[in-house]
Amino acid sequence: MKIKEDTPNQLQIIEGGSITSPKGYKAGGLHCGIRKKKLDFGWFVSEVPASAAGVYTTNIFQAAPLKVTQESIAKENKLQAVVCNSGIANACTGEQGLQDAYDMRKLFAEVVGVEEHLAAVASTGLIGELLPMDKIHVAMNGIQDEKHAGSDKFETAILTTDTREKGIAIQLVIDGKEVTIGGAAKGSGMINPNMATMLGFITTDANIPSTYLSQALRDITNQSFNMITVDGDTSTNDMVLVLANGLAGNEELTPEHKEWHVFYEGLRFVSEFLAKEIARDGEGATKLVEVAVNGASTDLAAQKIAKSIISSNLVKTAIHGADANWGRIITAIGYSGEKINPNKVSIYLGNIKVVEDSMPYPFDEEEAKEYLLQDEVRILAQLGDGNGNAIAWGCDLSYEYVRINASYRT
Amino acid sequence: MKIKEDTPNQLQIIEGGSITSPKGYKAGGLHCGIRKKKLDFGWFVSEVPASAAGVYTTNIFQAAPLKVTQESIAKENKLQAVVCNSGIANACTGEQGLQDAYDMRKLFAEVVGVEEHLAAVASTGLIGELLPMDKIHVAMNGIQDEKHAGSDKFETAILTTDTREKGIAIQLVIDGKEVTIGGAAKGSGMINPNMATMLGFITTDANIPSTYLSQALRDITNQSFNMITVDGDTSTNDMVLVLANGLAGNEELTPEHKEWHVFYEGLRFVSEFLAKEIARDGEGATKLVEVAVNGASTDLAAQKIAKSIISSNLVKTAIHGADANWGRIITAIGYSGEKINPNKVSIYLGNIKVVEDSMPYPFDEEEAKEYLLQDEVRILAQLGDGNGNAIAWGCDLSYEYVRINASYRT
Repeated sequence: MKIKEDTPNQLQIIEGGSITSPKGYKAGGLHCGIRKKKLDFGWFVSEVPASAAGVYTTNIFQAAPLKVTQESIAKENKLQAVVCNSGIANACTGEQGLQDAYDMRKLFAEVVGVEEHLAAVASTGLIGELLPMDKIHVAMNGIQDEKHAGSDKFETAILTTDTREKGIAIQLVIDGKEVTIGGAAKGSGMINPNMATMLGFITTDANIPSTYLSQALRDITNQSFNMITVDGDTSTNDMVLVLANGLAGNEELTPEHKEWHVFYEGLRFVSEFLAKEIARDGEGATKLVEVAVNGASTDLAAQKIAKSIISSNLVKTAIHGADANWGRIITAIGYSGEKINPNKVSIYLGNIKVVEDSMPYPFDEEEAKEYLLQDEVRILAQLGDGNGNAIAWGCDLSYEYVRINASYRT
Repeated sequence: MKIKEDTPNQLQIIEGGSITSPKGYKAGGLHCGIRKKKLDFGWFVSEVPASAAGVYTTNIFQAAPLKVTQESIAKENKLQAVVCNSGIANACTGEQGLQDAYDMRKLFAEVVGVEEHLAAVASTGLIGELLPMDKIHVAMNGIQDEKHAGSDKFETAILTTDTREKGIAIQLVIDGKEVTIGGAAKGSGMINPNMATMLGFITTDANIPSTYLSQALRDITNQSFNMITVDGDTSTNDMVLVLANGLAGNEELTPEHKEWHVFYEGLRFVSEFLAKEIARDGEGATKLVEVAVNGASTDLAAQKIAKSIISSNLVKTAIHGADANWGRIITAIGYSGEKINPNKVSIYLGNIKVVEDSMPYPFDEEEAKEYLLQDEVRILAQLGDGNGNAIAWGCDLSYEYVRINASYRT
């Protein structure tokens, strides 16, 4: 199922596009008082039930809303509406937390007029606190109020320590029909049990059965959302949901459909865009760092090595300081746990080669510093072990990261 | 072989003790010009050949001196002299680097009058640069000069970004004979390819065959040096060496010896002391953090969970900010990769219980803050899965860590 092209020319980015760009979706957001001032309650609804798929955190302390959402999807692999609060994660909250998540789903389903199992719930924020259900009740009353409508409000309501909204929409043509895919996300810390979590919401009007949607999402998540790291921590609340309501009117998409790859690449593009936006907006980040690994024994080995590099505090601080310290990069390759030929590693910073055959390669320090001072930095590690490739994204490690996380909660 | 008592009352700490406290060891250090001003070349020598054992980095890019030292020990499991430079790691230096390490060993063995395979070499510092062999030659001439003698000079000469020397010696009685164990170490970053690495050197006058010395070292390293982390990176140059020259005159120590546990506990005490000193003096650290995990399914599971907690940037920043943010601790337990009962976790900060049965336990925030402001902080996670225990050590993550590592090399 894996397809490699980078930016398929069949897709067009919709300026100002969002999760409501595909046909039949509405969204909104409001302030219900969990957070002091910022919007903290958002939702979106499809006109008709949509094929649905989700991927969920591997953390053993999976939060209550994730359990409830999985139950919803399990019933008939469809969703029609999603509600999300920020400020409290509803994680480590026991039986009461689970009941609150069920209640939140029930109330929401009633207000938007869908069956309960067609509604999903998500939460992000502080661990170990119960949802203030009185505020959740009040929030529900605002959903039908037109003044709270708008995908921009949804994008804002799901944020925590993020510094900006993350949204996108693209257009494809499948069977001669316009098919749109939209997305919204929040990140900041891969986990920050104070006030963060990675959440991704993708909507589309494509006609696709949930089985194939689910396969595509899992596959693409491994190349996008699972290839980013801010601090290496994995939240209790991470979740990506995708809804496909079929209103575009294309013929049913399956891997045998001649334009399957168009849809697949579109979904991949949106996922990768959101993933990179999350990395770029990591807590305290001043730049997006892309790590490409080529020539590994397998794609999986390449993924592990790329993650090892992008997760290294020492690599991240060196990049923060625009220091071409390749010793830290090769060291992170060396402790990745993958067997590699230790004499065949080349490393590039952008186009500047700094290591060849695992030994120093002469380069201009000033030129390298110039390059590393940019907003986007690319590290390439070429190994001599095979045809395995991977790309991972992350950010630099700054004073600001320490400040945010040393002093946030209290 | 594992023994659990914490501070066996059979051992006495020698005030101002060091690697030259055991009978028959001399040490020294000098400045040879690899570093600008600081001492950068140290050595120690035993009067007679000593049983020897070593543990080495698992990084695939193992530095040249480690290869040469392993070759030395392999010959007859003995060592008599050790030389170490700081400033340049002699890692990723290819054939030339290996030749330089051999030359350094040869020159040193000649000067101190031991057979070549009884000499060990170690390096720590910048990756990817060749040793300035002219300076190494000059350094050799200073070894016999009394003005460079002293274990304090050795302790200083092996440091890089460390802020202080790390030495200790203890005394035991075995077979009615005084047995002494001394140690020196350097750390700072678990790895910092600029100017750091973890090195440990342990000397003793105990009479013990290298087989058992080696077994004890491996076992103890897994409970001490391998249970610390500063930044999660594993250096190309990490190494711990132990020499036992037998001059104490005790009967040969084997696990069947009735006082084997006295020696074992002594070696463990010295290793743990040095490991904690390294963690306490981690780059930018303001405090030592101890993480104990009890009730895991196995000791190995407990180790993995303890390492997961102590390695979390979010836990480390919270502790830097004296924030009792247990959500980050339980999250790190949850993504450790170990299967645990998610409903049976209790967490303590010192004696203050903050989590019970995986849910919030009421505590006084001010009291917790007071506790976390101390120089030494202990986190205890109690699981409900079995009898597995482990302790790990690390430090907080501060602005200073970012400053040191964002700006060191250039």
